[in-house]
Amino acid sequence: MGTITADYDCSRRVPVPPSKPFLNSLKTSLKETFFPDDPFRQFKNQPVSRKILLGFQYFVPILEWAPRYTFDFFKADLVAGITIASLAVPQGISYANLASIPPIIGLYSSFVPPLIYAMLGSSRDLAVGTVAVASLLMSSMLGKEISPTENPKQYVQLVFLATFFAGVFQASLGIFRLGFLVDFLSHATIVGFMGGAATIVCLQQLKGMLGLVHFTHETDVISVMRSVFGQFHQWRWESAVLGCCFLFFLLLTRYFSKKKAGAFFWINAMAPLTSVILGSLLVYLTHAEKHGVQVIGHLKKGLNPPSVSELAFGSPHLMAAIKTGIIIGIIGLAEGIAVGRTFAMFKNYHIDGNKEMIAFGMMNIAGSCTSCYLTAGPFSRTAVNFNAGSKSAVSNIVMATAVMMTLLFLTPFFHYTPLVVLSAIIISAMLGLLDYQAAIHLWKIDKFDFFICLGAYLGVVLGSVETGLIIAVSVSLLRILLSVARPKTIVLGNLPNSGIYRSMDQYPSANKVPGILILQIDAPIYFANASYLRERISRWIYEEEDRLKFAGESSLHYVILDLSAVASVDTSGISMFEEIKKHLDRKGLKLVLANPCSEVMKKLDKSKLIESIGQEWIYLTVGEAVAACNFMLHTCKSNPVAVDYNAEDNV
Amino acid sequence: MGTITADYDCSRRVPVPPSKPFLNSLKTSLKETFFPDDPFRQFKNQPVSRKILLGFQYFVPILEWAPRYTFDFFKADLVAGITIASLAVPQGISYANLASIPPIIGLYSSFVPPLIYAMLGSSRDLAVGTVAVASLLMSSMLGKEISPTENPKQYVQLVFLATFFAGVFQASLGIFRLGFLVDFLSHATIVGFMGGAATIVCLQQLKGMLGLVHFTHETDVISVMRSVFGQFHQWRWESAVLGCCFLFFLLLTRYFSKKKAGAFFWINAMAPLTSVILGSLLVYLTHAEKHGVQVIGHLKKGLNPPSVSELAFGSPHLMAAIKTGIIIGIIGLAEGIAVGRTFAMFKNYHIDGNKEMIAFGMMNIAGSCTSCYLTAGPFSRTAVNFNAGSKSAVSNIVMATAVMMTLLFLTPFFHYTPLVVLSAIIISAMLGLLDYQAAIHLWKIDKFDFFICLGAYLGVVLGSVETGLIIAVSVSLLRILLSVARPKTIVLGNLPNSGIYRSMDQYPSANKVPGILILQIDAPIYFANASYLRERISRWIYEEEDRLKFAGESSLHYVILDLSAVASVDTSGISMFEEIKKHLDRKGLKLVLANPCSEVMKKLDKSKLIESIGQEWIYLTVGEAVAACNFMLHTCKSNPVAVDYNAEDNV
Repeated sequence: MGTITADYDCSRRVPVPPSKPFLNSLKTSLKETFFPDDPFRQFKNQPVSRKILLGFQYFVPILEWAPRYTFDFFKADLVAGITIASLAVPQGISYANLASIPPIIGLYSSFVPPLIYAMLGSSRDLAVGTVAVASLLMSSMLGKEISPTENPKQYVQLVFLATFFAGVFQASLGIFRLGFLVDFLSHATIVGFMGGAATIVCLQQLKGMLGLVHFTHETDVISVMRSVFGQFHQWRWESAVLGCCFLFFLLLTRYFSKKKAGAFFWINAMAPLTSVILGSLLVYLTHAEKHGVQVIGHLKKGLNPPSVSELAFGSPHLMAAIKTGIIIGIIGLAEGIAVGRTFAMFKNYHIDGNKEMIAFGMMNIAGSCTSCYLTAGPFSRTAVNFNAGSKSAVSNIVMATAVMMTLLFLTPFFHYTPLVVLSAIIISAMLGLLDYQAAIHLWKIDKFDFFICLGAYLGVVLGSVETGLIIAVSVSLLRILLSVARPKTIVLGNLPNSGIYRSMDQYPSANKVPGILILQIDAPIYFANASYLRERISRWIYEEEDRLKFAGESSLHYVILDLSAVASVDTSGISMFEEIKKHLDRKGLKLVLANPCSEVMKKLDKSKLIESIGQEWIYLTVGEAVAACNFMLHTCKSNPVAVDYNAEDNV
Repeated sequence: MGTITADYDCSRRVPVPPSKPFLNSLKTSLKETFFPDDPFRQFKNQPVSRKILLGFQYFVPILEWAPRYTFDFFKADLVAGITIASLAVPQGISYANLASIPPIIGLYSSFVPPLIYAMLGSSRDLAVGTVAVASLLMSSMLGKEISPTENPKQYVQLVFLATFFAGVFQASLGIFRLGFLVDFLSHATIVGFMGGAATIVCLQQLKGMLGLVHFTHETDVISVMRSVFGQFHQWRWESAVLGCCFLFFLLLTRYFSKKKAGAFFWINAMAPLTSVILGSLLVYLTHAEKHGVQVIGHLKKGLNPPSVSELAFGSPHLMAAIKTGIIIGIIGLAEGIAVGRTFAMFKNYHIDGNKEMIAFGMMNIAGSCTSCYLTAGPFSRTAVNFNAGSKSAVSNIVMATAVMMTLLFLTPFFHYTPLVVLSAIIISAMLGLLDYQAAIHLWKIDKFDFFICLGAYLGVVLGSVETGLIIAVSVSLLRILLSVARPKTIVLGNLPNSGIYRSMDQYPSANKVPGILILQIDAPIYFANASYLRERISRWIYEEEDRLKFAGESSLHYVILDLSAVASVDTSGISMFEEIKKHLDRKGLKLVLANPCSEVMKKLDKSKLIESIGQEWIYLTVGEAVAACNFMLHTCKSNPVAVDYNAEDNV
């Protein structure tokens, strides 16, 4: 016995970590949970005045980069800003239409929120604007409460209220550093959800394209199709022909800009505005508005009127507004932050998720008080901004200024803009969200992710937007819980001519060590998996015993648990160890642990399990554990469990 | 370059596993998820006739053990069965009182369900019976729907309906092998929840102890206390004195039986029945029922009447019955299975959780059709059964027979049993559920578990039973999600005089390797943690670069990610690797992977990441990775990233 422990270097023992005061470890773990990016790093060792300045710069990033802003940057931002403004105006009107609110609110929403974001946001490329999915969600969720056609004024108030709550929710997620909640919407979920939403948004456009007046309030494919084909005789061919022409034009420019970047980029970027101008001219000249082509009609001149007084907190529909606000808030964040991160990655700068949430939240709160509805960071517009060469958030300011000009002087020009052109613009933008290539990628790499994506898609298309979201989130959560509840246990074998122990499945050349079963547990041990692990480990043991009996080999003496991958245990996990220890004792087997991490050692120590297992049966590596077991097996031929392990040299 | 790869044994490469057909891997993972205990193992390689026999034995365990049953076993079971019957009768009446149903139903419930369990159950020690917490839950949840005092008949029907749904829910959990859902109620949750429930059950007994007629329907401490002290002038001292005497007697016997097992065990086991007999005699002789001591009154003679026709599926309270059924069903299961497993562990036999669920479900379905309400496996009664020397489920049959005799012949004797004795019995049983030692244990080992426990306790005591349950489950889930969302990343260092790399925090003697940062990721990489990990890894890198710059040491060249503990990745995880790769490339650092498991290798391969990282930069161990990096650092003094790694000997 002495030989094992005596020639064993003490520095290579697995130490029991010194116990930390509870408050200290709580502080560390809270910091790791809520401040993993260590945002206050730059504040360290700075004088107070500098700390205050840094604090301002932290919360209002424009203070940080504005002093370094150059004229060259401005030239680039001016071009990018005008480009995205040419998108913002027609899209603003189109999406407002989708949200069943007056088109002018879509324009208002491209004026105030971009200014707020330019001050508070940390992305240099994000182009702020209204988004199609959230617009549709608003009209489908709030339209159930108040009819937008019968009570337009009350409906708009409810939209402002929902926008307000979306902003409050977004800002509080950021302030309370709960940004990680957004991570629970996986990429697969978002691909499926966005694809489904894009599909139903396109289907909704059939109303505009075919010039239909009555249309279903449901969003699922079946209701929409029934509504479209049920009104077959009311289809307006003038409208349909015009719509198809513009759609063809828009898709053609997009196709070419994808194929050849360079010159076609600008054509593509300007296509929506061109369509609006051409369409309006056409209607004006042909008086098509009298032949079944619906037009926008009168738009009020002037900037955003204040709308604080319209936030009806006493409304009986308050709960619906809060619910809608939370859902559209989180969807806006999920898209906006993903978009921001993607482009930040291209240019190699860092986006602080929690700070972005505060910026999004503030811009929507401010928006709801100035007659704007929900804004976020749409992918398509941000990509145009990026490709047009934007250098900073100043491009958003340029866009806002251009929209302001439009509001002040150009609104009469939209009087004759045909709705069908807006539908064509929406369809062409939505087709870009149908990311079938991402779905194929998911299928290739991870089938389960693909099914989550498909579930979200079908949920949205066949049920409703909320159904799709609920399906996707619950399947994602179920996946996490299942993976926690059913961790892998792996039998390790010795790789030939080495002291390395690896999975027998993965490395076919690995050999079992006679008399020893080596198991690796591949997850933290929690209440959720403790009883599964206990059963699975027992099963490994009796399967191994059966196999040995059948093969006529020498019987099992040691079970080594490799705990390298066990990052933590809770009290149920400790009970599991106790029960496995008892179970093995009764079978006359010895439990040996390899490489427990400090948290596991701490808990094993506190629960006195180290004493019952024996400190000398806890090894730094599987190799050392095997060597010790082999030594015992070949030196002490008596039942190895009967040996007295309480040698005096135990630490 | 050649030297690294040439003298490198090919068998020690990390292999890309051969791709399996999707259906095969789906089958394997479904089997691991739903049949981790491999229940059909014994069916393998057996003739058909034997398979059928084994199948019957599998679903009806009595067929398996009955042929081996001996007379000696029967003698032991007879004693144990009579002992638990002496508990079952008074507890049955008491708990029925708690559930606000006629006391006779409590007796019925100790007759049919134990017989069903004896046939289908796999525990040898579990004593079936009514449970206090579920009884209280029923009266608090169903009492809101129908008043038990105003509409007793309809209320009882609703109780049967809830019992039926509890049974259906339990059986379906077992049949669909969803038993692991019960595992999401952690031990800490159950300790807190049971303690809270025991507290409020005790408080409810103040009604009986003080002889109060009117009492609140709320269960929280504040309402109960207000109700008790508000009726100060209606307290009946006769009742209170009698109750305190019996409570003192019961606690005394329990105290002594805990201190000295032997003789006192029987006194303790018989104490409730003795109290009932003594109490009834006392009331009968002194006519105390006319002086404020409430008595049970008339109990109908005869066995359980059928109650199938009373299951009112068309009831307007159907949803309430289903909800109550699910909650009491899962609580019954959680306690019953934990109890069964504990005692199976003592006697070293195995309990199949899913089979137990089917047994519990069938016994409650059968119960709901024969005028019984919810039964489970209470801890106290099972412990008595075990200590009285039970050998098999026959002790349940003996108990059922004894209860049958009581029902047929002895019900008149309970006419004069004072309610206050029943209250004393309930309080004495409940005090055993207040497991303060377990709470202390939790505090010592895992503070977080302690707070979960406390949350559940306070939720039950200050809110309601459902509030407590919801708090406990959501905090437990939050804990899992947080641990998934915030996995640990650990910096590894070299232990002196070895090729072993371990956490620098845990092993203070470990040394950093110059120019190399070694990080271990301690969790599967999922959508829920991918963006956290990306940020955390970037932070480790810039912190290390800052440190090196500050210390004036040589700069960083390699980042080794030890993936030993990464059991799986999804598509978001793969994107994270791609982004880290890009990030490191831009910084001129080289990404090296160590010990990826087969699932990770498979996905890296499918996503072409192996090609972009380079197969020769994926090593079996951290030691080999460090050796290769050191070789590159010291041999090729040029920028190591610029070397051509596509040597022809790459596999």
